[in-house]
Amino acid sequence: MEGLIIPALVSLAVCSVLTPVLIPVLHRLKFGQQIREEGPEGHKKKSGTPTMGGIAFLAAITAGSLLSLIWSPETLPQMLPVLLMMVGYGAIGLADDLLKILKKQSEGLKAWQKFAAQLLLTLGFAWYRMSMVEGGTLVAIPFTDITVDFGWFYIPFLVLVVVGTDNGVNFTDGLDGLCSSVTAVVAVFLAVLSLRDGGGVEAVSLCTAAALAGFLLYNTNPAGIFMGDTGSLALGAFVSSAALTLRQPFLILLIGIIYLAEVVSVMLQVGWFKATHGKRLFKMAPIHHHFELCGWSEPRIVTVFTVITAAGCLLAYWGA
Amino acid sequence: MEGLIIPALVSLAVCSVLTPVLIPVLHRLKFGQQIREEGPEGHKKKSGTPTMGGIAFLAAITAGSLLSLIWSPETLPQMLPVLLMMVGYGAIGLADDLLKILKKQSEGLKAWQKFAAQLLLTLGFAWYRMSMVEGGTLVAIPFTDITVDFGWFYIPFLVLVVVGTDNGVNFTDGLDGLCSSVTAVVAVFLAVLSLRDGGGVEAVSLCTAAALAGFLLYNTNPAGIFMGDTGSLALGAFVSSAALTLRQPFLILLIGIIYLAEVVSVMLQVGWFKATHGKRLFKMAPIHHHFELCGWSEPRIVTVFTVITAAGCLLAYWGA
Repeated sequence: MEGLIIPALVSLAVCSVLTPVLIPVLHRLKFGQQIREEGPEGHKKKSGTPTMGGIAFLAAITAGSLLSLIWSPETLPQMLPVLLMMVGYGAIGLADDLLKILKKQSEGLKAWQKFAAQLLLTLGFAWYRMSMVEGGTLVAIPFTDITVDFGWFYIPFLVLVVVGTDNGVNFTDGLDGLCSSVTAVVAVFLAVLSLRDGGGVEAVSLCTAAALAGFLLYNTNPAGIFMGDTGSLALGAFVSSAALTLRQPFLILLIGIIYLAEVVSVMLQVGWFKATHGKRLFKMAPIHHHFELCGWSEPRIVTVFTVITAAGCLLAYWGA
Repeated sequence: MEGLIIPALVSLAVCSVLTPVLIPVLHRLKFGQQIREEGPEGHKKKSGTPTMGGIAFLAAITAGSLLSLIWSPETLPQMLPVLLMMVGYGAIGLADDLLKILKKQSEGLKAWQKFAAQLLLTLGFAWYRMSMVEGGTLVAIPFTDITVDFGWFYIPFLVLVVVGTDNGVNFTDGLDGLCSSVTAVVAVFLAVLSLRDGGGVEAVSLCTAAALAGFLLYNTNPAGIFMGDTGSLALGAFVSSAALTLRQPFLILLIGIIYLAEVVSVMLQVGWFKATHGKRLFKMAPIHHHFELCGWSEPRIVTVFTVITAAGCLLAYWGA
């Protein structure tokens, strides 16, 4: 086990040390979060909190994951594509975060730029799975013994899974510690599943959970730093590419039930608003803001969403 | 796995439903927490929050654990003593909590009464392990392959482990969600270890983690309910008796590093105060109050202590 535990503890240590080093640097560079105009009133005070904290945990995850290769070099073909997806999406997020700050507005990269870069990366991952991985297009159907070969349909399916998950994780990143807590639990689940099935992504998953735990030390309410798109896009890429590598993308519907709820709440809110010419289904979308406006404390929402995620992971383990 | 997952989800559901039912009942009975006179000034506002929430998770754990016997009746000889220790200590805590409220002061049972009841229960558990369990007095030495037969010395050793752990868990229960979060992580660890080693306490441990997750929904800052001694004494008995059943009591020093830090901080504070005729080592003991007076938010202290516990569990898994 030391081949997993040492890398995880290294990731935890690197992130715990790097994050507080990063905070004053980002402060000095005035790389603070621009808070959405249309967000809850109470969030205005978060303006100026350093963002791009994802840099710290991406560095920590990369260090831990590469270190794990000393003990299990045979996991490289599964682990490296997931790590590259994570770091690649993190880089897109970083460009987005930097532009937001330099342009002093809450929109960074243009939508088409962001989408093109993501598509390119994702197609690269799809190509790898189709041409380099034996049975790379296989997908398990949870709660059955059935495994389906998606063939060429795997490409649009994979793009949908990655982009969908990434959007969900991105929306989830809207309260202090919410995205980190929820995704840490998801990462533990992916590590356990990979260990059980010999999936090869156990080290990168456990390192992600550990690095997020280290990040949470500073990201819990009141947050001293946010992960930014740097962090949330990377985490979305991690969850989707690890689940695809384990041939269990459908489990994201259970383990990522919060990501799903966040996306669906936004879609419902917008759809309802248009259909009724101005009525709102939730007090505010994404859904975490709804509970906030209902008077729930941020820590309480984080706890509730994290516990729901843990329950989803328990169910998913049963179905996997 | 459904023999573990269904009971855990049942425990989570029972505790999630029972706790909010309990809160108004306890309010009506005026079973609110008496806040220690000598505690931090900011805690005065917690006065009147219902206590004895441990009732809810003990009921949930009992329901889930007994349910698990449908799938794994062979675990009864390991699981039942742990469950009885937990419920027994919970009953002692309940008597204590009730007396505190009826007498309207922060001391309930007299120290000797509490100690005598605990000793009786603990000796019963020791008797069971010595006379009914084959190799019941064996204790593993972490990070080695050595297992030592403690013989008759097992009795005082077991009493020390149980009473020591129980005190630690009791001291840890001093911030919203602290004891529940830390112990939920410890319980997951014990479940995983028991699964790996066929220890027989995986169901009761996973049900404890799940019930605590359900309790946390209402116990997170700002807490709507406290667990009281009902909860904290029960959890201490659970951790120690499960670790003893797994023959890994020494691992409590790692997985219970927070419990240990809490006890030691109190001992150091008192010792230093006496030795220096009035100087203080910490701003306040137990140690969580020290960080509180340093200006840390309650959620931050809870996160930090929980992450430290998770790191301790990773190390412990390596050593086990």
